[in-house]
Amino acid sequence: MDKRHNLLFALFVVFMLVLGSAAPAVAANNSDNKPNDGNSNKKINNVIVMVPDGCDQNIQTLARWYSGEELQLDSMYTGMVSTNMANSVITGSAAAATAFATGEKTTVRFLGVGPRAEDLLSIYDAEDMAEPYVPLATVLEGAKLEGKATGLIATSSITHATPAAFAVHVHDRGMDSEIMEHIVYQDIDVVFAGGEQYLDSDRNDGEDLKQVLLDEGYQYVTTTDEMEAVTTGQVWGMFASKHMQPEMSRETTEEPSIVEMTEKAIELLSEDEDGFFLMVEGSQVDWAGHANDPEYMVTDFLAFDEAVKAAVNFAEEDGHTLVIVFPDHNTGGMTIGNYDTSYTDLTVEELVDPLKGEEGTVEIGWTTGGHAGGDVPLWAYGPDKPTGLLDNTELATCVADAFGFNLEDVGEELFVEVDEAYPGIWSLDLTDSDNPVVVIERRGVVAELPVSKDILIIDDTEYDLEGVVVGVPMADGNSVLTADDDFYIPQEAVDIIDEKISEGFSGRWSLDLSDSENPAIVFDNDSVVVKYLYTQNILIIGDEAFDLIDILGSI
Amino acid sequence: MDKRHNLLFALFVVFMLVLGSAAPAVAANNSDNKPNDGNSNKKINNVIVMVPDGCDQNIQTLARWYSGEELQLDSMYTGMVSTNMANSVITGSAAAATAFATGEKTTVRFLGVGPRAEDLLSIYDAEDMAEPYVPLATVLEGAKLEGKATGLIATSSITHATPAAFAVHVHDRGMDSEIMEHIVYQDIDVVFAGGEQYLDSDRNDGEDLKQVLLDEGYQYVTTTDEMEAVTTGQVWGMFASKHMQPEMSRETTEEPSIVEMTEKAIELLSEDEDGFFLMVEGSQVDWAGHANDPEYMVTDFLAFDEAVKAAVNFAEEDGHTLVIVFPDHNTGGMTIGNYDTSYTDLTVEELVDPLKGEEGTVEIGWTTGGHAGGDVPLWAYGPDKPTGLLDNTELATCVADAFGFNLEDVGEELFVEVDEAYPGIWSLDLTDSDNPVVVIERRGVVAELPVSKDILIIDDTEYDLEGVVVGVPMADGNSVLTADDDFYIPQEAVDIIDEKISEGFSGRWSLDLSDSENPAIVFDNDSVVVKYLYTQNILIIGDEAFDLIDILGSI
Repeated sequence: MDKRHNLLFALFVVFMLVLGSAAPAVAANNSDNKPNDGNSNKKINNVIVMVPDGCDQNIQTLARWYSGEELQLDSMYTGMVSTNMANSVITGSAAAATAFATGEKTTVRFLGVGPRAEDLLSIYDAEDMAEPYVPLATVLEGAKLEGKATGLIATSSITHATPAAFAVHVHDRGMDSEIMEHIVYQDIDVVFAGGEQYLDSDRNDGEDLKQVLLDEGYQYVTTTDEMEAVTTGQVWGMFASKHMQPEMSRETTEEPSIVEMTEKAIELLSEDEDGFFLMVEGSQVDWAGHANDPEYMVTDFLAFDEAVKAAVNFAEEDGHTLVIVFPDHNTGGMTIGNYDTSYTDLTVEELVDPLKGEEGTVEIGWTTGGHAGGDVPLWAYGPDKPTGLLDNTELATCVADAFGFNLEDVGEELFVEVDEAYPGIWSLDLTDSDNPVVVIERRGVVAELPVSKDILIIDDTEYDLEGVVVGVPMADGNSVLTADDDFYIPQEAVDIIDEKISEGFSGRWSLDLSDSENPAIVFDNDSVVVKYLYTQNILIIGDEAFDLIDILGSI
Repeated sequence: MDKRHNLLFALFVVFMLVLGSAAPAVAANNSDNKPNDGNSNKKINNVIVMVPDGCDQNIQTLARWYSGEELQLDSMYTGMVSTNMANSVITGSAAAATAFATGEKTTVRFLGVGPRAEDLLSIYDAEDMAEPYVPLATVLEGAKLEGKATGLIATSSITHATPAAFAVHVHDRGMDSEIMEHIVYQDIDVVFAGGEQYLDSDRNDGEDLKQVLLDEGYQYVTTTDEMEAVTTGQVWGMFASKHMQPEMSRETTEEPSIVEMTEKAIELLSEDEDGFFLMVEGSQVDWAGHANDPEYMVTDFLAFDEAVKAAVNFAEEDGHTLVIVFPDHNTGGMTIGNYDTSYTDLTVEELVDPLKGEEGTVEIGWTTGGHAGGDVPLWAYGPDKPTGLLDNTELATCVADAFGFNLEDVGEELFVEVDEAYPGIWSLDLTDSDNPVVVIERRGVVAELPVSKDILIIDDTEYDLEGVVVGVPMADGNSVLTADDDFYIPQEAVDIIDEKISEGFSGRWSLDLSDSENPAIVFDNDSVVVKYLYTQNILIIGDEAFDLIDILGSI
């Protein structure tokens, strides 16, 4: 340790003494994890967000004809949602879900992180957007800080774009291993979906996340019967290795329907007196749209509508539940009628029967095998339900407002950049290159923070954090993290680490009153004795004395 | 006149005397032409219905990108509208407009008349529908009965389906001559559109309806300057022989824009202290959809949006104006993006520039050259604005409720079937076969009611009726009316005719007290003297006496 370094350290110590203990002060500022609690909306205790992925109202009209009945959603139209992402007029699913989970526009394939600056649409200025790759707080994370129970349901793998965006911060939706790790470590109370393979067999880091869940005390179920048997507590239901079955072929399996998953999740989550946040995705409406398959699309949409009915039934009974429903975007550009349709005399049977496998011509039109860019419908039920045209980012604000928190505050609470909090005193441990660990070292305190987990380890003590440690690359291409990338840890971890460092001083200093004219604080830094004559502002390190007034005057 | 007929006539007279004057009683029942006036909604004085024909929200999203600005309609989403017609899952324009003008589903091409029973969709029972071909009261007709000013604006010929449905009762939208005649004779205060040719040169009955308008005192204008010069009173603006120009090519003409027409109409109609009803159609959005022409569609939609802005500006200032906006159906099935679009990186410029004639690929998809069957958006502004999913028929109810009248009452007021009111005593005068006249003859009173006009002629006296005389065929094919068809006249005409018939008796009867035991009412029926000994109930016709008690007992 050279002198200059020693001096800086001494100055640091002085500042700490002069200001009082900085670490406890920071901790006090953040001891209550409920940002904006005073503004919380007492009318709304629970929010259920439901996404029929990839459609617009045309499938609703078709489903109404197909079923011959009014749909639950028919009573819930309240407005429209605009959907473009940061880099395209037409959105991808990951960017769309990031928008309504975090309130920020991002780039195609990004999940829960800020947009790339290079290819923003011309309507955007980079300075008005979230910073590139920076983790963005989600409404699920905000709800957790409020003490609410949380749940995620999908009929795809839980690692798919829409569910993932509520719990994950990675720059590529294809990183299923990292995505599953984030979800597992987010302490979500109820998870029902497919994706079991990403828990253990299909991972690039060799971890056994199923065991992690069991160790955390989760109930783990894989069939409808097992799910139905759960009546309390936290549960993961993994009903398929990857994606669940389309509604059309579900009955031949042991998989629960989306309405069964929704009802069970509400039953379990509503035990929490602080309320809950639940997201339910009808994932495969989108895939049917990509496949231009109207029967697949209409049957999955109808199953989704049943789940909405279950949610609204609960909300009606409860009176303090807001249900917000919207597609992430349109897929397929489906219409009732195509270029060959004799549209002025199309009977119900001519429209519906061919979709049920009966003879006849399918009278459905499509514009694309991909996504389309039009506004999509907004359906809602409950107190202060949103109305009119909302941008998809405003849907996140809507949930945050309902719960009375501010997503920016949640972001500050959950994502402290390591290099800003601990410049020069952190490193990335790549001993196990698939499981990088952020290490912060100071005054004998060694804090370890495995990336993509919610764990802090200091001196063999493991702390369960309120959010996950996030590593984000400096550029798109890098899926393997290095020390050049950016890492974020919860403020809670900073508080714990700082307290430990502060504790590091306790018993390591004394007051030397031998010269009553020049009282001194004395630090024994193992290798050198540091004295601070605080009435004179003189610092003595070993044999050398430094006049801090002079020094401060010259710098 | 045989005896039986004489007897029946005498009995009729007796009933009239016993009951008092029936005709004045009927007249009194209907002297105030404001059905349900007590329920009128004091919050709403004016209703403006605006229809961007043939589209859904995809054109709105595209127009937003194209213009680079928020649209007026962006602040007005409130719900959705379902659109099927009586005989098809996908609606035609005439049936759609009939639905939202009258509140009743009808058959393709029908305008303001009940649906054909033969080909109803399987979801409908004939008994729940309006009777086939029966004229259906429109919200414009109801507003007129309320004493409100009325206006119709279109960028097509005024005879086109949407404007026509508010003022016309014919079974085929192609009957431009009859349609124009209905509109001319509906006493609409402001009409701005194309269609001049149907006033005179292009008519199948040789009439000069332009002269009729001038005789009625209308101001008649054909250019923007002439229109702007009108500052008060009733006006017809016919700005094109048939249809007006698309917005793209309008500036090379003397035609006003849709916003100019809307502003002028509101200026004139708002002079009426009783309030007004105005319908504005952006007619050509639909044609652009049929042509799969995105530039045409987006520019006409933006022009329409400007007109909505003008309406809402007035409504904001006024505070008692409801503005309801909705397409009649989707046309073209347009989406942003098609099978060839690279949808995850589509820039604003790549989307918009090719639509403005610049180089590039048009990134728009279409499913049809016809109509499509999905729900269409509902936009609204003002007191008690409609929200949620409405069937298109409910939009008519919404307007009627806002004005506080009941469309069924309006129908009873305007459409009395001639054969029911005057069985056996009416005929159809086909002397001029292109201009049939309903003739009712009774006791020397000859009432003439030219079909498709609002005129009643009795003894050279012309009465201006509150609604038009409607002739409807007994089957689709018949465009030439015969006495076998059904004719409807306003109750007001019935009242006038009945009063005239009643007057026919005045001075034609005397009280004969010569036999004080048997006082008699004596009628001189030109050819025979009729005496009624009313204390004995004996009727003496010529030389014959009839005991009415006996007769009534035996029948």
